[in-house]
Amino acid sequence: MLTLPTLPPLHAGAQSAARARQDTLTKPPGSLGRLEELSIQLAAITGQVRPSLVRKAVIVMAADHGVTAEGVSAYPAAVTPQMVLNFLRGGAAINVLARQAGARVVVVDIGVAADLDLSEAQRDAPLYMRKIAYGTQNMTHHPALTRGQAEAAIAEGLDVVNAEIANGLDLVGTGDMGIGNTTASAAMTAALTGLPVAQVTGRGTGVDDAGLARKIAAIERALAVNQPNPRDPLDVLSKVGGLEIAGLAGVILGAAARRVPVVIDGFISGTAALVAARLAPDVKPYLIAAHQSVEIGHAVILEELGLHPLLNLNLRLGEGTGAALAFHLVEAAARILNEMATFAEAAVSRKAEG
Amino acid sequence: MLTLPTLPPLHAGAQSAARARQDTLTKPPGSLGRLEELSIQLAAITGQVRPSLVRKAVIVMAADHGVTAEGVSAYPAAVTPQMVLNFLRGGAAINVLARQAGARVVVVDIGVAADLDLSEAQRDAPLYMRKIAYGTQNMTHHPALTRGQAEAAIAEGLDVVNAEIANGLDLVGTGDMGIGNTTASAAMTAALTGLPVAQVTGRGTGVDDAGLARKIAAIERALAVNQPNPRDPLDVLSKVGGLEIAGLAGVILGAAARRVPVVIDGFISGTAALVAARLAPDVKPYLIAAHQSVEIGHAVILEELGLHPLLNLNLRLGEGTGAALAFHLVEAAARILNEMATFAEAAVSRKAEG
Repeated sequence: MLTLPTLPPLHAGAQSAARARQDTLTKPPGSLGRLEELSIQLAAITGQVRPSLVRKAVIVMAADHGVTAEGVSAYPAAVTPQMVLNFLRGGAAINVLARQAGARVVVVDIGVAADLDLSEAQRDAPLYMRKIAYGTQNMTHHPALTRGQAEAAIAEGLDVVNAEIANGLDLVGTGDMGIGNTTASAAMTAALTGLPVAQVTGRGTGVDDAGLARKIAAIERALAVNQPNPRDPLDVLSKVGGLEIAGLAGVILGAAARRVPVVIDGFISGTAALVAARLAPDVKPYLIAAHQSVEIGHAVILEELGLHPLLNLNLRLGEGTGAALAFHLVEAAARILNEMATFAEAAVSRKAEG
Repeated sequence: MLTLPTLPPLHAGAQSAARARQDTLTKPPGSLGRLEELSIQLAAITGQVRPSLVRKAVIVMAADHGVTAEGVSAYPAAVTPQMVLNFLRGGAAINVLARQAGARVVVVDIGVAADLDLSEAQRDAPLYMRKIAYGTQNMTHHPALTRGQAEAAIAEGLDVVNAEIANGLDLVGTGDMGIGNTTASAAMTAALTGLPVAQVTGRGTGVDDAGLARKIAAIERALAVNQPNPRDPLDVLSKVGGLEIAGLAGVILGAAARRVPVVIDGFISGTAALVAARLAPDVKPYLIAAHQSVEIGHAVILEELGLHPLLNLNLRLGEGTGAALAFHLVEAAARILNEMATFAEAAVSRKAEG
């Protein structure tokens, strides 16, 4: 039986002190728009009126999906382990963007359907070996996971984020790698929201029209075969989900429990956040939506979670790339609160009355 | 008589080579969305297939506006020199955000209505003393500037950006400081586009409803008194513009002439870009719109210039703050092209055919 961590309440005192401080800084009140709101959220999460976000990580969970046998992806499943090695060598987009953001990339094999050949990898990023299974079952025939596997993957996510917090962590982003995982995310989003599959299913890595039709049909079969219970997020996660989605739900809950703000990447990470919020609704104020993905199901998830993405750059890569890009804005919000002069300090005249 | 620099054509070879390179990198083609387009634009501007944007600056032009006598701003005009000193000491929002971006802040007094007391300033940022006048005339009674003053301010902008390019500059952002300058920008936008004043005029630093009505009325009087010729951008600039707007138009044209990409901040910078584009339409592909401002006239300008902003964070501060935030995304685009592994280098399988 999975034990979820207790989520602390937001820190109301730090929140109101940060709001008051924003109005003393040398700018018209409100003129930094969403950065001001974000800085107040960071204070409420961390309990620090002047939060400092120095130690940053993107946790990338990698796993495979049995449903790829149905021809739902533009890429072969072999790409999952190949890309994990690319992460370890530092050549993927997430490595480039995390490096720019001053964040470390943390890779977790939570269910890759191959034994990784690590002999050649230069280990630009640390790797956690936490494989629950060699990928999920094909959900068009069987449940993707047992409930025990789904719970174990969440527990691994909790454990990994706690280990990273012990290493020092002020801000965490979520990332994913897994050929077939937009199919699992769309299936979960349809199951959890009750929306028609076609309204939450996009082209993933880039299937053509025939591929998209196969993908929608496969998800519809998976939902018909498994009948996931929309009121039981663990039932949905195990029947039509994925190991990286479960692991990321654990990362999200574990970070929030320790007052570490969580930057949610795109559709797969969003699906993990939706599971986390269904398990523990109090997690929502700890979440920051990095961007609005091209995947149509992502907008549905953001709406369900009440999140407003910081960026809209037509991204659809995953890996945590949107989260790494958004780190800059989150850190900017904190720095404004920390580093700007006040009207009094700078001897600048305030707004005229009336 | 002002001599404008010659703008070079875009580098078509570097542009197509960058586009081809994007499709060899280890990600689904197009999955980094606007970052990919931006990287191709950077290659076309710089002529480098793998552009490197290490040396960055935000050039902040400061000037005053005689129209503040009409009660169009929420802040007294004394704030302009006070904020210039805040820039020099490093306490303003632009200092914080430029520091985070690894960019230098370059301040230009092109028309502040006071002699700056520099004895106390710690000079966190360099200051160019290029004062053309102690602010503009009140445009509700007289032309804001003579045509000669407007031309001189453009020439100073050209000179400053050339000096900064000589110091080493791979990416430049535009910024402004000047109480009253949303009034001048709205007047110029109305004159240059023919739109009604109320459709391009916002609350600036935060006037109330009565202040907004005074502001719109003042702009309407200024346009009636001066009758600027919409086909003559220098006539519009001198009659209802401002010295910082003219200076920034010079910065924009000078940077483009030397193949330095220009990140345009918000409404005031956008007005300068519109003047630059009316003087030299070939400048447009050298421009990158940082963000979408709260000021309603800014959307009109972006539409006129055919620019799509990278960020939409409800900013309305100016100073180049949006440009500094956008530097991160521009640099990310360049780094993706420079630093990511190709499919061949990483031995990752490519997209399946058909």
